[in-house]
Amino acid sequence: MADWALRARGLRGLLLDISGVLYDSGGEEGLGSAIAGSVEAVRRIKQSGLKLRFCTNETQATRTKFVQKLQQLGFDMSEKEVIAPAPAACQILQERGLHPYLVVHDALVPEFDSVDKSNPNCVVLGDAANNFSYENLNRAFQILIGLETPILFSLGKGRYYKETDGLKLDVGVYMKALEYACDIEAEVIGKPSKAFFLSALADMNVEPHEAQ
Amino acid sequence: MADWALRARGLRGLLLDISGVLYDSGGEEGLGSAIAGSVEAVRRIKQSGLKLRFCTNETQATRTKFVQKLQQLGFDMSEKEVIAPAPAACQILQERGLHPYLVVHDALVPEFDSVDKSNPNCVVLGDAANNFSYENLNRAFQILIGLETPILFSLGKGRYYKETDGLKLDVGVYMKALEYACDIEAEVIGKPSKAFFLSALADMNVEPHEAQ
Repeated sequence: MADWALRARGLRGLLLDISGVLYDSGGEEGLGSAIAGSVEAVRRIKQSGLKLRFCTNETQATRTKFVQKLQQLGFDMSEKEVIAPAPAACQILQERGLHPYLVVHDALVPEFDSVDKSNPNCVVLGDAANNFSYENLNRAFQILIGLETPILFSLGKGRYYKETDGLKLDVGVYMKALEYACDIEAEVIGKPSKAFFLSALADMNVEPHEAQ
Repeated sequence: MADWALRARGLRGLLLDISGVLYDSGGEEGLGSAIAGSVEAVRRIKQSGLKLRFCTNETQATRTKFVQKLQQLGFDMSEKEVIAPAPAACQILQERGLHPYLVVHDALVPEFDSVDKSNPNCVVLGDAANNFSYENLNRAFQILIGLETPILFSLGKGRYYKETDGLKLDVGVYMKALEYACDIEAEVIGKPSKAFFLSALADMNVEPHEAQ
């Protein structure tokens, strides 16, 4: 869209998804590939003076590693510009004094280094893939069912996603499993949670009506 | 209840649960233990002339093995008197010409020996315990999502059960997971399905109003 059109609509900021919008995950070396035109699109948005944040539900890698991968693919992107569920979860856990039991991908664990995980009083589910074992899910369940007020955080609520070797079950499926087991409702951190989008807007000091 | 009381109420048949009613599972040798008075209660019901069937959602063993265990504990019980989800599922699969992909406990697999499992066009979930791996659940999902009309059978819909070393997630939790993943509703075979209870009554030629 031309600059004049954006100004005419009062736009000051943009939120962009990453996976499936700017790049496709998977591939032989796990690097994925930029979608045609997207590297240039990001460059031009930044040149236009519009504020920009990237909103992702990626939880199979720390934000640091994920951004490094995208930079390698040519994207003009810094870690501070990427709003991801795990850092948002860490903030919530610290604000509420909660100690999580993590059911996440091995590569995401370092994101929670600063969080006290002793005597867990809540559960955090990410896209754990093979870590969604019966043993791990049962442990998460036992912790939740033992709490007076079970608190379950889910980093997204996706049903499935596509990898090069086929469709894979996403975190939302296991969120539903634990919701049913404990008769509770999870708190979703990540898209499509309103709070997640609002935090991205607040981060660039843009009101909802000024963003797209 | 005394014989005269049963006759006065027009009762001709009884359905009894097993696990948690007649016996408790678990224990060091996995044999479990009869609940006090239950062996004698079954004996007296049979002596009273009432028809009797045992309804169970047990799917961690074949019906044959399960009944052998209960006989060892002293129960007067034959395989034909036990209504269990897996034999009911086999009958449904054969009637409808369906080939299942099984996500069940290793010990239950022989129950499906007579069923053609090539080119699966439905999924059967039992209480699979450690077989509820990400890999197995993902495979079940891929089969379902690839079907024009995904058919998911769940042998029960329990949330969890108690074993000697704590609470364990039951089949219903994984049923909910696949229901959400595929946006479908499972067909439950076993309690509390009305069809399951009716098949038990039909088996002893007793009408619903004549049973308890």
